[in-house]
Amino acid sequence: MAMSGVMRPGHACVRMLDLDEAVHFYRDVLGLQETGRDKQGRVYFKGWDERDHNSFVIRQADKAGLDFFGFRVLDVATLNKLDSDLRAFGVATERIPAGDMLETGERVRFESPSGHLYELYAEKTHVGNGMPLVNPGPWPDAAEHGIAPFRMDHALLYGPNVAKTKEIFTQVLGFRVVEYVEGPGGAGPAAFFMSCSHKAHDLAIVEYPEPGKLHHISFRLDSWEKVLRAADLMGRNKVPIDIGPTRHGVTRGTTIYAWDRSGNRFETFCGSYEPYPDWQPIKWTWEEFGHGLDYPTGKLHETFLSVVT
Amino acid sequence: MAMSGVMRPGHACVRMLDLDEAVHFYRDVLGLQETGRDKQGRVYFKGWDERDHNSFVIRQADKAGLDFFGFRVLDVATLNKLDSDLRAFGVATERIPAGDMLETGERVRFESPSGHLYELYAEKTHVGNGMPLVNPGPWPDAAEHGIAPFRMDHALLYGPNVAKTKEIFTQVLGFRVVEYVEGPGGAGPAAFFMSCSHKAHDLAIVEYPEPGKLHHISFRLDSWEKVLRAADLMGRNKVPIDIGPTRHGVTRGTTIYAWDRSGNRFETFCGSYEPYPDWQPIKWTWEEFGHGLDYPTGKLHETFLSVVT
Amino acid sequence: MAMSGVMRPGHACVRMLDLDEAVHFYRDVLGLQETGRDKQGRVYFKGWDERDHNSFVIRQADKAGLDFFGFRVLDVATLNKLDSDLRAFGVATERIPAGDMLETGERVRFESPSGHLYELYAEKTHVGNGMPLVNPGPWPDAAEHGIAPFRMDHALLYGPNVAKTKEIFTQVLGFRVVEYVEGPGGAGPAAFFMSCSHKAHDLAIVEYPEPGKLHHISFRLDSWEKVLRAADLMGRNKVPIDIGPTRHGVTRGTTIYAWDRSGNRFETFCGSYEPYPDWQPIKWTWEEFGHGLDYPTGKLHETFLSVVT
Amino acid sequence: MAMSGVMRPGHACVRMLDLDEAVHFYRDVLGLQETGRDKQGRVYFKGWDERDHNSFVIRQADKAGLDFFGFRVLDVATLNKLDSDLRAFGVATERIPAGDMLETGERVRFESPSGHLYELYAEKTHVGNGMPLVNPGPWPDAAEHGIAPFRMDHALLYGPNVAKTKEIFTQVLGFRVVEYVEGPGGAGPAAFFMSCSHKAHDLAIVEYPEPGKLHHISFRLDSWEKVLRAADLMGRNKVPIDIGPTRHGVTRGTTIYAWDRSGNRFETFCGSYEPYPDWQPIKWTWEEFGHGLDYPTGKLHETFLSVVT
Repeated sequence: MAMSGVMRPGHACVRMLDLDEAVHFYRDVLGLQETGRDKQGRVYFKGWDERDHNSFVIRQADKAGLDFFGFRVLDVATLNKLDSDLRAFGVATERIPAGDMLETGERVRFESPSGHLYELYAEKTHVGNGMPLVNPGPWPDAAEHGIAPFRMDHALLYGPNVAKTKEIFTQVLGFRVVEYVEGPGGAGPAAFFMSCSHKAHDLAIVEYPEPGKLHHISFRLDSWEKVLRAADLMGRNKVPIDIGPTRHGVTRGTTIYAWDRSGNRFETFCGSYEPYPDWQPIKWTWEEFGHGLDYPTGKLHETFLSVVT
Repeated sequence: MAMSGVMRPGHACVRMLDLDEAVHFYRDVLGLQETGRDKQGRVYFKGWDERDHNSFVIRQADKAGLDFFGFRVLDVATLNKLDSDLRAFGVATERIPAGDMLETGERVRFESPSGHLYELYAEKTHVGNGMPLVNPGPWPDAAEHGIAPFRMDHALLYGPNVAKTKEIFTQVLGFRVVEYVEGPGGAGPAAFFMSCSHKAHDLAIVEYPEPGKLHHISFRLDSWEKVLRAADLMGRNKVPIDIGPTRHGVTRGTTIYAWDRSGNRFETFCGSYEPYPDWQPIKWTWEEFGHGLDYPTGKLHETFLSVVT
Repeated sequence: MAMSGVMRPGHACVRMLDLDEAVHFYRDVLGLQETGRDKQGRVYFKGWDERDHNSFVIRQADKAGLDFFGFRVLDVATLNKLDSDLRAFGVATERIPAGDMLETGERVRFESPSGHLYELYAEKTHVGNGMPLVNPGPWPDAAEHGIAPFRMDHALLYGPNVAKTKEIFTQVLGFRVVEYVEGPGGAGPAAFFMSCSHKAHDLAIVEYPEPGKLHHISFRLDSWEKVLRAADLMGRNKVPIDIGPTRHGVTRGTTIYAWDRSGNRFETFCGSYEPYPDWQPIKWTWEEFGHGLDYPTGKLHETFLSVVT
Repeated sequence: MAMSGVMRPGHACVRMLDLDEAVHFYRDVLGLQETGRDKQGRVYFKGWDERDHNSFVIRQADKAGLDFFGFRVLDVATLNKLDSDLRAFGVATERIPAGDMLETGERVRFESPSGHLYELYAEKTHVGNGMPLVNPGPWPDAAEHGIAPFRMDHALLYGPNVAKTKEIFTQVLGFRVVEYVEGPGGAGPAAFFMSCSHKAHDLAIVEYPEPGKLHHISFRLDSWEKVLRAADLMGRNKVPIDIGPTRHGVTRGTTIYAWDRSGNRFETFCGSYEPYPDWQPIKWTWEEFGHGLDYPTGKLHETFLSVVT
């Protein structure tokens, strides 16, 4: 199988200070589809073109941030193999039973040296994208409800020990580094953009003193014009924008960073390129990382470096 | 490794009736980059964002059409394993020594039941995309020379026994069917769109009485506006257009089909979606395949069904 | 006043074979806004960014085609002056009292030598574009209801004596020829694209033996991506497409020609350029007019020349 | 004549601290076409789709800023009439002989109460847009040289007495106010966006204590994707960006503000809408003017208010 192992980012669970407001925001402003609520009070969403039941989950909490971030693997055998491989690599794992998350099978959870909870799972119910599997059109009405990203795309997480965290993903889980950033003063890599597919990133991690921090969850749009439409809808709804619309140098994607009302940053992302496993990684020096972040202006926005949840 | 086995379409070798004219066309109108010529007189090209030395090769011949179509696999061990797997599946293979194609390693060639020569190879020299691996910009000047596709993307090939051909790709080479078309009158699948990645297709095959036929080689553009630009440049250069600009229902991509002066069809393609191995395939019925081909008009263009080289 | 005299195309009244079906089509598929119905049973529409009460009016009839096409002039004094100028030029005019059309003042009507009824009027109630006149956003929700053109833009009408008709518009009504087409065999101009503004055309006329024919009413979109969206919605709703999506050589606009269920052609049009009164007109020869119609393919579609209502 | 009087912004003459560097910047980075140099050492440029000989003129000086801004009027009779009208309105005028600017006829110059030198002229040689007047294509190669705006579009000028300046343009020169901004604390209008056409603005003026200041000269692009391309080229050439890419609330246009090396701000602008003389103006309150400037973020950038040359 040419694609196997870890397939894709599958779910993010993020904490909200006001759940009702957040449901309104993620459903009607960002334009995800609400697909369910569980007994714990978590609310489940998906992007319009995702076939799995859920990809973005929120819950009420006193503090914003990320509970956990999960990846879908090919099948149960792969799940068991990767669990075993993680333990062999010295990473403690925990099994969370099927059904803990709605429509989701058993999950293998581990904590990275950066202080994040990552998960692997092999099963999540396919609910489809609202179009038939026979003679579908190119997009459903839902593709125009709110900002309407078609999928939850990746996460950028901040924490310590990113070099060690990267090793787990590259040596055990089959990811590879597509781009990375050298820290100031030759301190070694400060950020890794890693892929388990031929997307430019499925996960990015940045060195940061505090463990377990969320920089942003990214949602994908399919054109630069949709990025403008997202910007317009952010303006209409007075969503606080951090950076953008602009182009990243890193990954070449176009982007807007903005915050939900709880202070969690999210991204509406588009474009990029398709790297393959045989490609050498791209390096960004610290001096030029301003262009890596915001290619047109070259501005190393202070918020990028310091505002996380 | 989450991506392994067969990675991507790597080269197509196509026959031209007038090589000099074809070099001009593919270099200056389509806007590929010429990267070399070999002793046999073959001329090598690549798209601007491809890192390998070549992806599209042409030679002088009395008859247009496809010589062979090759896929890059992860590494030499994979190449040997797939060669062995092919033979175990009953497919005869042939080894073509390294150096037969410029900057390309040993190739494993086999003929499919549809009468096409397919190849696998593990090595082709990286020459890069004209931008540095340190602090690159988002695109080089070459991205605006001619139509300027960034890569050779896939092929659509016509021949008999597509069901059997599909089995080789899905059972041995790790491809999967992403979309397929039911033939008229319940005759069974007439076309398969297969992926070895999370592109909607890396190879498509259509049932056709004559073996070994080329329907088109597809080149990728990165926006619908670039598709318009391609259309403008085709108009300026009086390139004969078959269909488009329009949107395919199949794969959702936007497209122009046109012909080179030798009569080989090529495509400038953009967009589509990102299917994963766990996704169920999409079926097109014959009655609605007009919309599969040309979603806006629903027209089942006669040329699509009958004009091949 | 730098802009005066005739300001813009203001209304088209078109006949439908099935009014209910047509209301559904123009309101929910094309995405105009229904603004009223009069005692005669006419149904009034406007594009989302038009401020006047109506611009496109339909009525039930046994035969498709155009009843009349009207232009808004600056004010009542201008209306009276142009009426007088028309009569001085030998063109008979008729006054239609205010209130005959909903929310519309007195109209001055004349028949052109091409057999079309044209109108001038100075008053039509401003109803706005659904956004406030204080601190408006860039677009309202209505901009995404159906294909959602923002305005009725121009008409292309077929009939005899276009050279004489052109003279009325250029010598009396302040229009100028922006582009024109030479007929086959040096027969003189066969088509005139005329502007009363700095749009490339507010009215186009083509020589044709039958008088009073409608080729199409054109509706404006604001990006090539919206033209693709229009194409997608036409595919979804099985709207019969004549030509496109493509680019016109004439005016450089991007376009789709399609038909309503009564057989009236309409256009979804975008782009073009901004000519000024001092610019020399552009000429298209008959030999190259295929590129004038459909720049990429250069195809002189037979339907363009022969299908009118 | 439906369009008459003042037709369009025709030329801006701007001062540069380093002429050679500025020639390089405006020719190769912004992508204007150099069309000549005069005895005074001024260098003349035009946008690729302008037909007049020049629209943007630079000269060496010790201080950046605007020398004068000119409008092309319909013809010599109009020029004389407007000169007479200006004097009748109490505005002193001066005649600058034909030939003072290259390929440009006699100019009527006046100083506005805001301290700017404005000019009217009726004659500037047509040199064309590089495409033939018979069977032209949609764009020439020059449309991709540098950022490649197709025209010099408008100016935004800062100075005192904008209400009085506005009266000259609206009461004498046939302009009308399309949008305006109320100053803080009910101080009356602080900015007027005025049109002599059906563009949303041909000239904008903002109240400011110092006379004769230049906020920016604006250059027009024809798609949001070209705005991204402009942003990429600014990043590549390390052009200092002030704001954008983003959307203005005022005029709805998309934009980037940036500075040349002399500190003169310029804009790459796209989109907007087409207002007519009968439309009521749009008002922006001071409280919401942040969204008027930068619709997505709502940020009232300090540089917009304070950095001028």
